[in-house]
Amino acid sequence: MSSERLIYLPLGGAGEIGMNAYVYGYGKPGKERLIVVDLGVAFPDMDTSPGVDLILPDISWLKKRRDRIEAIFITHAHEDHIGAIAHSYEALQAPIYARRFTANLARRKMSEHGHPEDAVTTVGAWPEQVTAGPFTVGFMPISHSIPESSSMVIDSPEGRVIHSGDFKIDLTPGVGEAFDPALWADVCKDGIKALVCDSTNVFSPLPGRSEATLGPEIEKLVSAAEGMVVATTFASNVARVKTLAVAADKAGRSVVLLGRAMKRMVEAAVETGVMKDFPKVVSPEEARGIPRENLMLLVTGSQGERRAASAQLARGKYQGIEMKPGDLFLFSSKTIPGNERGVIRIINQFSEMGVDVVDDSSGLYHVSGHANRPDLETLHDVVKPQVLIPMHGEHRHLREHVKLAEAKGITGVLAVDGMMIDLSSKTPTVAEYVDTGRTYLDGSVKIGALDGVVRDRIRLALNGHATVTLVLDDQDEPLGEPWVDLMGLPEKGRSNATLVDVLEADLGQWLNRQGAKTLRDEDKLNEGLKRTLRQSAQDEIGKKPEVTVVVSRLS
Amino acid sequence: MSSERLIYLPLGGAGEIGMNAYVYGYGKPGKERLIVVDLGVAFPDMDTSPGVDLILPDISWLKKRRDRIEAIFITHAHEDHIGAIAHSYEALQAPIYARRFTANLARRKMSEHGHPEDAVTTVGAWPEQVTAGPFTVGFMPISHSIPESSSMVIDSPEGRVIHSGDFKIDLTPGVGEAFDPALWADVCKDGIKALVCDSTNVFSPLPGRSEATLGPEIEKLVSAAEGMVVATTFASNVARVKTLAVAADKAGRSVVLLGRAMKRMVEAAVETGVMKDFPKVVSPEEARGIPRENLMLLVTGSQGERRAASAQLARGKYQGIEMKPGDLFLFSSKTIPGNERGVIRIINQFSEMGVDVVDDSSGLYHVSGHANRPDLETLHDVVKPQVLIPMHGEHRHLREHVKLAEAKGITGVLAVDGMMIDLSSKTPTVAEYVDTGRTYLDGSVKIGALDGVVRDRIRLALNGHATVTLVLDDQDEPLGEPWVDLMGLPEKGRSNATLVDVLEADLGQWLNRQGAKTLRDEDKLNEGLKRTLRQSAQDEIGKKPEVTVVVSRLS
Repeated sequence: MSSERLIYLPLGGAGEIGMNAYVYGYGKPGKERLIVVDLGVAFPDMDTSPGVDLILPDISWLKKRRDRIEAIFITHAHEDHIGAIAHSYEALQAPIYARRFTANLARRKMSEHGHPEDAVTTVGAWPEQVTAGPFTVGFMPISHSIPESSSMVIDSPEGRVIHSGDFKIDLTPGVGEAFDPALWADVCKDGIKALVCDSTNVFSPLPGRSEATLGPEIEKLVSAAEGMVVATTFASNVARVKTLAVAADKAGRSVVLLGRAMKRMVEAAVETGVMKDFPKVVSPEEARGIPRENLMLLVTGSQGERRAASAQLARGKYQGIEMKPGDLFLFSSKTIPGNERGVIRIINQFSEMGVDVVDDSSGLYHVSGHANRPDLETLHDVVKPQVLIPMHGEHRHLREHVKLAEAKGITGVLAVDGMMIDLSSKTPTVAEYVDTGRTYLDGSVKIGALDGVVRDRIRLALNGHATVTLVLDDQDEPLGEPWVDLMGLPEKGRSNATLVDVLEADLGQWLNRQGAKTLRDEDKLNEGLKRTLRQSAQDEIGKKPEVTVVVSRLS
Repeated sequence: MSSERLIYLPLGGAGEIGMNAYVYGYGKPGKERLIVVDLGVAFPDMDTSPGVDLILPDISWLKKRRDRIEAIFITHAHEDHIGAIAHSYEALQAPIYARRFTANLARRKMSEHGHPEDAVTTVGAWPEQVTAGPFTVGFMPISHSIPESSSMVIDSPEGRVIHSGDFKIDLTPGVGEAFDPALWADVCKDGIKALVCDSTNVFSPLPGRSEATLGPEIEKLVSAAEGMVVATTFASNVARVKTLAVAADKAGRSVVLLGRAMKRMVEAAVETGVMKDFPKVVSPEEARGIPRENLMLLVTGSQGERRAASAQLARGKYQGIEMKPGDLFLFSSKTIPGNERGVIRIINQFSEMGVDVVDDSSGLYHVSGHANRPDLETLHDVVKPQVLIPMHGEHRHLREHVKLAEAKGITGVLAVDGMMIDLSSKTPTVAEYVDTGRTYLDGSVKIGALDGVVRDRIRLALNGHATVTLVLDDQDEPLGEPWVDLMGLPEKGRSNATLVDVLEADLGQWLNRQGAKTLRDEDKLNEGLKRTLRQSAQDEIGKKPEVTVVVSRLS
């Protein structure tokens, strides 16, 4: 046995959904040559990351080993897989490989950030392969809710690993390639060392349905509608966008695309040839001349995002178009957990306008892009891996997926972010625990999720803010009283006097009681003013604000 | 026709789920004698109401008409129906009527807030009635997920109105009264002017299932479990708590109640006699001496609340009890939209402990407390009202419920919070639009939702905070440079210098360029410092902080 080893290390996406970033390495321990599969983002929320723009995987481990990175492979163009490439380019500077459609979108991202487009190389589907140090890597087509999704076939001196990427088993996906059991059987026929596998829908007990089942239902709905029809889905779900557009066309409705992402995705799909025969599109301006019963709008904002076209239509006009009583709004999408409030808000706004809203609760107008439990088993059965490593899931999904594998005699390995797995031995072992985490893109700055910046903002949101200022003369004697400014706090409290006045009075009294020793001691003075203000506020309004104390000493 | 009229006015709960507060009045316009049905709360969230403790209906309309209020009736003891009684008592001082179990909990609330318990009067079930000015009001038993839920039978000189309260059609509810079709038919036989009706589940197409269907399934699950079993549900769902406890008992497991609400509810149910034969309960201390396979814990926190027993068990020990691999955690509950993240967090924490989690996705371990669409129709058919007014729903629910009623020839009236409906005429009309809204209980202070306090806190969370201080001498000349303190902002930005230094340098430069006129002008100086800081921060970190400027002038 050689001293080289094959390692797998998730830096994001294992133990959470989003922010996918997986590393494979081969070589002597500590000197492995590395490849990265996917570099995605996650999205912030008010509960845990207010004010943050994007969540990126912490790539400091990779950055320190930049000279050992051979390549970055992107399985598909969803933001949680591709979103971090431009943000990481400066740090990693590794060549990026992707298939045509994904590469098209990757280049747009690179160029928007002023990075060279030619850092992205387009690779054809399997059997084409890329050599990356000790690895030979191919893009194996698989069906998912975006064109040209691929599983990575990763060959190393230790054998072949399959990294599934996001997938479903769809034999009639509409746009993009169908799952091809024969091709898969062929690729896996000589034995697969490990299958690193999507776990998103491991709790969905029924077989997934094909994209093709939706067309007839959507056509029925659109034909029966009397007013304007507006439908939303993820713009990147090009197959769905086409299904919707074709339904419009069959019902004699002109198609309008609203929202930047919607236009960009259709453009990319047509440019790269993954989508053909998309019905003719009219502009919002042209649409104004068409009777509303002959229109169908395809809009961004299936998750209720406040700035997307759907939410803007729910609040009023968007690009001159307005919804009216009797119109129909279709969510051809599922609400991702955490986005419920935003989605429900726009449904109610449409309800107030007299617009009928149809969502996916009937199951007729949306299918998932991920493999359900029986479909995961189908892949297990085709690939027959020695080892199954679940990814793309929260801990509960990974754990369940390990159970599923082990029930059929496959060794399951539960590896969360930061667990480096040595795949060389027969039974994979944890080689090392690597520090991982989240990096926040905050405005134009990257900050660590644990730096305390966002924690302070959450405290400001919960407790409000008070500024105390005090000026001391060159003898350390106060010049006037302490001064209080408040933000995010009520004007009056229990005593019904103005809160600022109450706080200033209490601070003034405290200050009068202090001797020269405290007045000279910066820390004591600050601490005393802060404690006094917080106690006074607690008595008056039942809340302890965050406090900034500024003592100015004249000298 | 007399000049008296019968009015209905929702102040909360119509156009939202939560914070129920409905007013009925009878008399000459502007002089109606009033009764209130329910005074509930809603719960805050980080997105819209960070730092807020409770959301109360704005009762200023009622407060101004305090002398016209005859009584407050509480249909049942859920917080969204009873939660505001103690917070409103000082303002309204009206007598409160409720059935025994509800009154028991109402008195606890009153006493916790230092209000007289005897403001609460216990009323028996229909046919008992209370006279309240021109109204005669009875509590008509109906099934729901808490004992002694009632519909209000409101008799006025204009006829009988039924206010459904929250309900489901359950003929075998376990604890509490079954829906009694014969009794309902009798009460409604002389014609019902209006049915004001729960709309929560109007989008659920299948008939609701009875509480009784759960027992056998839960028993199967609990008997088959090998380790400790922990189950959570709303504590107020006393029937469910009993179903769970009985399942424990049958499986030879001792029952432990964890969480304040769990103990309080069981206590109230036993005290008031609504629950009999509850299995013997052991304390957490006693539990430590019992093998874990002989234990079943019933715990609070079905919505993932951070301080509840479930979340504490997910983080580690709670009252000396700890979960272990092989234990089972059962959510005998549904996650309310908006609470997904909290629930998912604890599921993943349990997963990391090796605890198996079972939720309601199979449909076997939870049933809803609200009437589904066909059950709403059952009530419509029994009551046969002239007019249906949907309540307890967001706009989309109310609208759908109106459609449902009108499809079977009942006049539907869509009345959201603040719409006063005149029920006297054959076709109800909007008599008036009343200002309504939300009052935040924030610490110990009540503030209006639109006062700007919470809006400022949200801004602080999104943008962070900067304090700028400047001292000017008695000639309006700056004494030293402007000083900056930051909170919730990154330490460094684009230039890689400390952010505070960059901001102070830019402010200093700006200040140097100002003439005496600006230095003397408080507003100009403040505005200039603020604008300069925000622009400088935007360049450096891509973010414009909230700013407090404090200029101290020596004189």
